[in-house]
Amino acid sequence: MAKLSMLSVFLCFLVLFHCSVAYGQQGGRRSPFGEQGQRGQRRQGDCQLNNLNAQEPQHRLQAEAGVTEFWDFDDDQFRGIQGVMMSGCPETYQSSQQQSEGGGRREGGGQRFRDQHQKIRRFREGDVIALPAGVAHWCYNDGDSELVAVIMEDTGNHQNQLDNNPRKFFLAGNPQQQGQGQQQQQQRERFRHREQRQERNFGNVFSGFDTEVLAEAFGVDRETARKLQGQDDNRGHIIRVEGDLQVLRPSRSREEQEEEERGREYGRRANGLEETICSARLVENINDPSRADFFNPRAGRLTTLNNFNLPILNFLRLSAEKGVLYRDAFMPPHYRLNAHCLLYATRGEAQMQIVDNRGQSVFNDRIREGQMVVVPQNFVVSKQAGNEGFEWVAMKTNENAMFSTLAGRTSALRAMPVDVVANAYQISRDEARRLKMNREETILMEPRRAGRIRSVA
Amino acid sequence: MAKLSMLSVFLCFLVLFHCSVAYGQQGGRRSPFGEQGQRGQRRQGDCQLNNLNAQEPQHRLQAEAGVTEFWDFDDDQFRGIQGVMMSGCPETYQSSQQQSEGGGRREGGGQRFRDQHQKIRRFREGDVIALPAGVAHWCYNDGDSELVAVIMEDTGNHQNQLDNNPRKFFLAGNPQQQGQGQQQQQQRERFRHREQRQERNFGNVFSGFDTEVLAEAFGVDRETARKLQGQDDNRGHIIRVEGDLQVLRPSRSREEQEEEERGREYGRRANGLEETICSARLVENINDPSRADFFNPRAGRLTTLNNFNLPILNFLRLSAEKGVLYRDAFMPPHYRLNAHCLLYATRGEAQMQIVDNRGQSVFNDRIREGQMVVVPQNFVVSKQAGNEGFEWVAMKTNENAMFSTLAGRTSALRAMPVDVVANAYQISRDEARRLKMNREETILMEPRRAGRIRSVA
Amino acid sequence: MAKLSMLSVFLCFLVLFHCSVAYGQQGGRRSPFGEQGQRGQRRQGDCQLNNLNAQEPQHRLQAEAGVTEFWDFDDDQFRGIQGVMMSGCPETYQSSQQQSEGGGRREGGGQRFRDQHQKIRRFREGDVIALPAGVAHWCYNDGDSELVAVIMEDTGNHQNQLDNNPRKFFLAGNPQQQGQGQQQQQQRERFRHREQRQERNFGNVFSGFDTEVLAEAFGVDRETARKLQGQDDNRGHIIRVEGDLQVLRPSRSREEQEEEERGREYGRRANGLEETICSARLVENINDPSRADFFNPRAGRLTTLNNFNLPILNFLRLSAEKGVLYRDAFMPPHYRLNAHCLLYATRGEAQMQIVDNRGQSVFNDRIREGQMVVVPQNFVVSKQAGNEGFEWVAMKTNENAMFSTLAGRTSALRAMPVDVVANAYQISRDEARRLKMNREETILMEPRRAGRIRSVA
Repeated sequence: MAKLSMLSVFLCFLVLFHCSVAYGQQGGRRSPFGEQGQRGQRRQGDCQLNNLNAQEPQHRLQAEAGVTEFWDFDDDQFRGIQGVMMSGCPETYQSSQQQSEGGGRREGGGQRFRDQHQKIRRFREGDVIALPAGVAHWCYNDGDSELVAVIMEDTGNHQNQLDNNPRKFFLAGNPQQQGQGQQQQQQRERFRHREQRQERNFGNVFSGFDTEVLAEAFGVDRETARKLQGQDDNRGHIIRVEGDLQVLRPSRSREEQEEEERGREYGRRANGLEETICSARLVENINDPSRADFFNPRAGRLTTLNNFNLPILNFLRLSAEKGVLYRDAFMPPHYRLNAHCLLYATRGEAQMQIVDNRGQSVFNDRIREGQMVVVPQNFVVSKQAGNEGFEWVAMKTNENAMFSTLAGRTSALRAMPVDVVANAYQISRDEARRLKMNREETILMEPRRAGRIRSVA
Repeated sequence: MAKLSMLSVFLCFLVLFHCSVAYGQQGGRRSPFGEQGQRGQRRQGDCQLNNLNAQEPQHRLQAEAGVTEFWDFDDDQFRGIQGVMMSGCPETYQSSQQQSEGGGRREGGGQRFRDQHQKIRRFREGDVIALPAGVAHWCYNDGDSELVAVIMEDTGNHQNQLDNNPRKFFLAGNPQQQGQGQQQQQQRERFRHREQRQERNFGNVFSGFDTEVLAEAFGVDRETARKLQGQDDNRGHIIRVEGDLQVLRPSRSREEQEEEERGREYGRRANGLEETICSARLVENINDPSRADFFNPRAGRLTTLNNFNLPILNFLRLSAEKGVLYRDAFMPPHYRLNAHCLLYATRGEAQMQIVDNRGQSVFNDRIREGQMVVVPQNFVVSKQAGNEGFEWVAMKTNENAMFSTLAGRTSALRAMPVDVVANAYQISRDEARRLKMNREETILMEPRRAGRIRSVA
Repeated sequence: MAKLSMLSVFLCFLVLFHCSVAYGQQGGRRSPFGEQGQRGQRRQGDCQLNNLNAQEPQHRLQAEAGVTEFWDFDDDQFRGIQGVMMSGCPETYQSSQQQSEGGGRREGGGQRFRDQHQKIRRFREGDVIALPAGVAHWCYNDGDSELVAVIMEDTGNHQNQLDNNPRKFFLAGNPQQQGQGQQQQQQRERFRHREQRQERNFGNVFSGFDTEVLAEAFGVDRETARKLQGQDDNRGHIIRVEGDLQVLRPSRSREEQEEEERGREYGRRANGLEETICSARLVENINDPSRADFFNPRAGRLTTLNNFNLPILNFLRLSAEKGVLYRDAFMPPHYRLNAHCLLYATRGEAQMQIVDNRGQSVFNDRIREGQMVVVPQNFVVSKQAGNEGFEWVAMKTNENAMFSTLAGRTSALRAMPVDVVANAYQISRDEARRLKMNREETILMEPRRAGRIRSVA
């Protein structure tokens, strides 16, 4: 046990909610997707959006070998691997005879066995991982430092035909014992509110089947079948791997090379053969500054991930964005036309203001690293970074989320005739011209003078 | 009245719910689509899915010449014809002069009249009939035995912009009197629960219009208009035809030949001309063993019908499946990623188990011929046939419903590296390898030894 | 101030609801989209559709220079211009150097300034204007008479991910003072019903931001920023322009010529270059009798606007129709398969009857100019014009709304074999033939004799 590794082995089965854009990052916390983040139209009654709050992680999920949120921050490199199992897709990673012999010896069983399994994907800091609805997955941390993942499960997605309860299930482990205890406690509370007698058992999905059925289905004895159900497993949903995890995978350098090559294929037209769901690209990095879609050397940068640069998002109907604001830089009032936005602060802090359709301020507060805030569709938002700057990752409920700016070069005011501006605001044409033209930036602006625009929080 | 025939003449107007995949079969019962079957996301509040029940037919719809469910089973052949009327589509079945003269004479009026009407489709046992939202239809049983249809009306469909009440209406008859009495009673109960004063009249849709309006609209006298409203009609929604029903249609042999020819056209690309909604193929048979998509000579077979082999299902967003399990054969735990599944048992019995996301068993019971059970999206299900074997038909709320298996050759466990399996379940690599590899079958498995896997129900 | 003009300058921000098909017309009133018109499936519980009512305008929106509904009618020509601002689209209307000098001089500032802004569209009576979700817009009446717009905001649209509250916001003005007062009063009432403490401030969206933020975002002083918030603005949401509004636009004749040319392009296939969202055609006229899709010289005409003749409707998922019935002419019972229909009477009156799926009459009344009625999906409706004839405009919640007729040449009865009709209604074949064949018209019928079909209302 030389290293602490995190292996949520096929424990996390993202089932009911389409989605899950996971953002791998170093340091910071994990925050659950709050109530507001669920697409309101499918909830009963109206959305109560008079006061939005930045949300702290409400619980820590303890497990044998990790928790789902943690605070420590260090600069060590981490990398991980991940397996996504899709029923019906072929096992394309297959050991040759030679390798298998070695593998066989190492097992000690003396038996020759060639392992084969589905594709394994490597991930690193800054990766966004898209998981289609209903696929099983596991991930393994083989780096030297902790791994933090921010997970969004979109129960409002069109692929979810059931209610708004997140209904993922586990294929292994016994999450009730530790691990998901608290979260499920919460869920239980919500359940109980609706129906009085809700039982407390939350095992993996095999625990609901008769042992005989499992023994028959897998062609094993009852003892092994009982292990599937994980009744005596006290390790929770994240477990420790003794020694190295032995999986087949290409060498790292070859993998990266291929990744680069694939990167050049952007924009080619599909012919239906070159990419099926089985080999679809599910991982894309948005941390690299050179990939920024918006960049202002004195204000910051913004990198977006949508259905154009990660086509699987067409199925997920989600997109993501990574933002960096330098010290005191700010984003002027803007709104998203077609999506809710879940913003999670990964570094620093910012002063954020959110205004609703009636011109009411529903949020005017600081948001710090590890906090999360949901900006509903069409609510207008502005933010200014603090002294340390501000970084965030945002996930949006549309595969091609769009925003509209109210100030700057791409704004509605810029698009109007000067005379219309002057009449609308009862100002002179000169003032109107200034209002239209004074700011040439689009969404990332540098402050005219250093410091907070507004000192009181 | 030499034969008893079933003629739901344009009585059943599938209006509000998109769909209706009807499955024509001999013997067995008809069961209504239960509450759970409605797509929950559009219902208010959460789905209460802690206990699923197999459902017996709750009522028998009496009519002059039939009921909608019946039990008797015999081996005689039946065939029927069906008309689907689409407003705006041409009347493509037209009698020639000669035929019309004969027809004219038979009518006794002495008047020459060439009848013409829209396409008529023949159906037989095992056919699935897809009815687009809002089209009118009638069907006629010209065989020697009774006809059983299982009808699913998908009120949760995207084409339904109203609430979840099934809102089909009748173009003829007076269903309130007999026929739909009980069903509407039920509906009334549900209505009354919401709004106190719900009136009790359920006539055909013409009964709501003033007689004068109908007389004018059809250019007939008031006496005939009153007949449209069916006030004095006591026959219910299924009526008896005296003598033969005279409709224009190709001879049976020619029809079958054409059907075969069309069958070969699968996979050709559309050019927009060869098939419009007016001539779309609406009927497809899934009873033929040679069409099976999954087949295990020692376990059974599974035939699916989806948007690839019946393109109209793209519009309906529904699919169907016919399954046969031989004695003691079973299906290992699996779940549907993107659809609810309404399973109706057509022969024999099976032991079924359904487990929810929390690892709770919500159904563990026998399901017999004539019963129906709904398996919600992402709930894991297994079943084993009884001594007589088991047959069923299932309708699914996605035009290309997909399932994932948890055991067998296409399962998630098979797709994982042995080392991941071993660590996840705390078993040796040998055990893990057996768990992965012992079962080579996919979804249809033969039992390792005869008899029930689990003897207690 | 030679002319009264209406300038809802970027006040009306159609944000939350996808849509807004606006119908510009002379005379008549504006009516809000009633409760029933919201797509019921997303509302909680069931739709209560036992009694539909024709709706009068419930409030008049007062503003300095206009109200949103008015009654006066005159034959003077009006024309208007409209700007739709889409963030990110280029400013394609740009003054040349010479023009700009003139413009600069006129401003009195002596400063040379070349204005540029986004495309401006001209509209006239009978135009339907489609506004995509989330775009800002303003419009200006430069004609001699009043302008009436009927606006439908489709909160049930798929682009709205929030609740069913209309959540448009204003970019200028101070609508709380006059203008939207009453409407918002209503909204407030609804809000209060749900949550007790709802504040009363309804300013434009800038009023919710700190003045410093606005000053920084626009690069102006605080005084100008305060003007943006419109605190002291008492003019409401429609304001008066002193003198002429100076905007860049092509001469009228050139504009019309181009419009005609574009009209010929219908049916060409897109190659992705010729029309982006920035230059999409948003306006289409449906008043011209020569464009009618249905025409009966003795009964009237019907003109439809759908995704085929206005492609932007594919994004809006809405369509529109303009109907004219001559004196005593009528439309036989018909229903819409896939859409709700919001009918607004623009001239004359008609007797309308609406029947639900249970054969119950839910509306049987006269509808007069200025009234609105909602016909839910699959409800059967008929109408007969009064002595003055009847004109209406209808908006439908599907980009290609379809109707089915129950009488006439395209009806379901016409599509059935005579023998089926005879058996269904217990009538002779002769009667059945008359029922099928007596009416050759489709949807627009002339009365067999003059006068009301049914004299009592």
